[in-house]
Amino acid sequence: MSLRQDCEVIIQDALKQVRPDAAVCRTVAGMDFGPGRLVLVAVGKAAWSMANAAWNSLDRKPDTGIVITKYGHSEGPIGNLEVWEAGHPVPDEQTFAATGRALALTTGLNQGDTVLFLLSGGGSALFEKSPLPIQELRDITQKLLASGADIVEMNIIRKRLSDIKGGKFAVHCAPARVFSIVLSDIIGNPLDMIASGPTYPDMSTCEQAQAIIRKYGLELSAEASELIKVETPKQFHNVDTRVTGSVTGLCLAAAEACEKLGYRPVILTDSLTCQAREAGAFLAAIARYHQSAEESLAFLAGGETVVKLTGTGKGGRNQEIALAAAEGISGLEHTAVFSFGSDGTDGPTDAAGGFVTGKTQTVLQNQGVTIFDVLQNNDAYHALAQCEGLLITGATGTNVNDVSVVLIRRESDLS
Amino acid sequence: MSLRQDCEVIIQDALKQVRPDAAVCRTVAGMDFGPGRLVLVAVGKAAWSMANAAWNSLDRKPDTGIVITKYGHSEGPIGNLEVWEAGHPVPDEQTFAATGRALALTTGLNQGDTVLFLLSGGGSALFEKSPLPIQELRDITQKLLASGADIVEMNIIRKRLSDIKGGKFAVHCAPARVFSIVLSDIIGNPLDMIASGPTYPDMSTCEQAQAIIRKYGLELSAEASELIKVETPKQFHNVDTRVTGSVTGLCLAAAEACEKLGYRPVILTDSLTCQAREAGAFLAAIARYHQSAEESLAFLAGGETVVKLTGTGKGGRNQEIALAAAEGISGLEHTAVFSFGSDGTDGPTDAAGGFVTGKTQTVLQNQGVTIFDVLQNNDAYHALAQCEGLLITGATGTNVNDVSVVLIRRESDLS
Repeated sequence: MSLRQDCEVIIQDALKQVRPDAAVCRTVAGMDFGPGRLVLVAVGKAAWSMANAAWNSLDRKPDTGIVITKYGHSEGPIGNLEVWEAGHPVPDEQTFAATGRALALTTGLNQGDTVLFLLSGGGSALFEKSPLPIQELRDITQKLLASGADIVEMNIIRKRLSDIKGGKFAVHCAPARVFSIVLSDIIGNPLDMIASGPTYPDMSTCEQAQAIIRKYGLELSAEASELIKVETPKQFHNVDTRVTGSVTGLCLAAAEACEKLGYRPVILTDSLTCQAREAGAFLAAIARYHQSAEESLAFLAGGETVVKLTGTGKGGRNQEIALAAAEGISGLEHTAVFSFGSDGTDGPTDAAGGFVTGKTQTVLQNQGVTIFDVLQNNDAYHALAQCEGLLITGATGTNVNDVSVVLIRRESDLS
Repeated sequence: MSLRQDCEVIIQDALKQVRPDAAVCRTVAGMDFGPGRLVLVAVGKAAWSMANAAWNSLDRKPDTGIVITKYGHSEGPIGNLEVWEAGHPVPDEQTFAATGRALALTTGLNQGDTVLFLLSGGGSALFEKSPLPIQELRDITQKLLASGADIVEMNIIRKRLSDIKGGKFAVHCAPARVFSIVLSDIIGNPLDMIASGPTYPDMSTCEQAQAIIRKYGLELSAEASELIKVETPKQFHNVDTRVTGSVTGLCLAAAEACEKLGYRPVILTDSLTCQAREAGAFLAAIARYHQSAEESLAFLAGGETVVKLTGTGKGGRNQEIALAAAEGISGLEHTAVFSFGSDGTDGPTDAAGGFVTGKTQTVLQNQGVTIFDVLQNNDAYHALAQCEGLLITGATGTNVNDVSVVLIRRESDLS
């Protein structure tokens, strides 16, 4: 097995574990929801495949249910479930109609009944209902954005203007039990942020909301002003939440794959958010220090780095991490660095990420390509294409951020 | 012990190990150079303290010897050694006179004799002799610099125009044995780069040198042209080299200090060269992931990061690492990040570095200080001063780069 082959195996194994269907199957397998009614509500960009997996895995099929996903993201009927498509990232009439249906299906439930709630990224736009007119809701959001409010401030206000967000969907379902399975696309899995937390307690207060209104000099209608004064639910006992797909899971799955291949895996972090090329330099420095280790090693870092735009080339954050690392590991034997996005799309390219070894810099140099210049032009895609360094997976159907891996293989372990 | 107290202990313990005198004492203790002549040659900014330590540690004192250091860096006579001061970073008449003396003291040695060669940073300017007139040597250097030659290209040429550099001092001492003790101030300890490697084989070739002359269209005198054609020594068997002070040693010493305090130390790297604030973000992400570890942990990263100048404030790379990390570890309990320069001077400040905890960001916020803005203005010094985050050691007398440390203390380990 070459380092490149190891890389391909690690990627495939890791992706298998975080695909929405696999994640849902693992979680619901063998679950017993008792004799009460079972209603399935799936919301988000991965709603269809999560619902489909749940339907197929459950011994007892849901009595009723609904799937709300983005236009073009459903793939046909699932049992007796209603399948809706709606607007994303901006909610539209379909959003409110579909959400209305979901609320209707979960109205009047009793203790002993269960709502199986399958949530993925995009749920904030796809699952919404407000006592205010749509236009007023949009205006408030626009004004806050224009005033420079940050995402935390925005959410404190929006949760109060919604009948769904900030835990209110959980309150609506009570006294039925809500079993939430969350596929997280946000670093750190902040459950109150993913789709604005329809089944998660909101920790912000009315005082904070009022302060934000004052801070930005927002003028609200009488109705909106009243909504701002109503406190959000702070705790409830009818909700059980499992985060099943997440960058943490991606890191653990990749680490397990490394271990199977004979590497001792070391997960450094699952919340890397620094600049991509600096992360690549850091990973390369780690690779260099551990050259004399007696066993094969794999260092893993999950997260979502950022690309600093200084040029007009083609690339993505994972490709920049790999190419920047190529400089730092140049000349090292049996050493590779690769990085990939779990959605299979790194930046505006057809690659999931990049793969480099201790030879990459020399290979590029011999073709007259200087890594420093390529990075300055944000053109990692074309440079990696010249040294067989692109990782192509195609669209994967999941999105739980990225993972970067350093592989150091002992010669004695080379098979 | 608080995290801050742990930090202070780790810094003091680590510095003790990499002080030039301690490093030399450790290396020469108990050494037996046999019955032949023993000549001591100490060169560099730390030459005086290295020579003084060697003189005091050796059972048998050197028969003769010389110390060549920078103006103002000698602290009095040492036994029967000649003590010289000379120009740095630009060589002057004293450089050539002192080097001439060193060559005279090491001329005519026999097999069985030993040259104890103590080398530290700055040796390139302090230890030099050339067959060319000084002015010609300076002109060539100037022209290369003006043409955009990099440090590797410069050294390939300079080694050929020197009677000292590129291993030629080792050849001069033969057949006597040369025992080199090197205090490294360059990441990765490239022995052919430290003081241009007077006792280290040169791997560059005459062809490379000729190509550089052609590349930059350099016009040389007949004498210089002849020198360029002479190959440098590629190997010799009379030299034994020990790198004793280096960032690697600093990391190991800091790791040992962490272990004594109950932390399990993990050295990530000894060659970190990325941007300081991004390194801080990476270290914070590592701290966050390991919060639930069952034992107290210390992650260490040595190197020399760079500060990206975007403002006009006061600070240094270690202070930026710490302050940037404060954002990432905000809210974490029993967690600290600190970073310091082994010379005790971080940037143009009186601090060696910075120390932050999970509370630092909040403490600053309450004073109206936003870390993001401070970093944009490169003003870490003043922010750290406001939260007791400055590390002050004073000048340490050594310079083996920096080390950054993440401390995560389990409550059960708190004493």
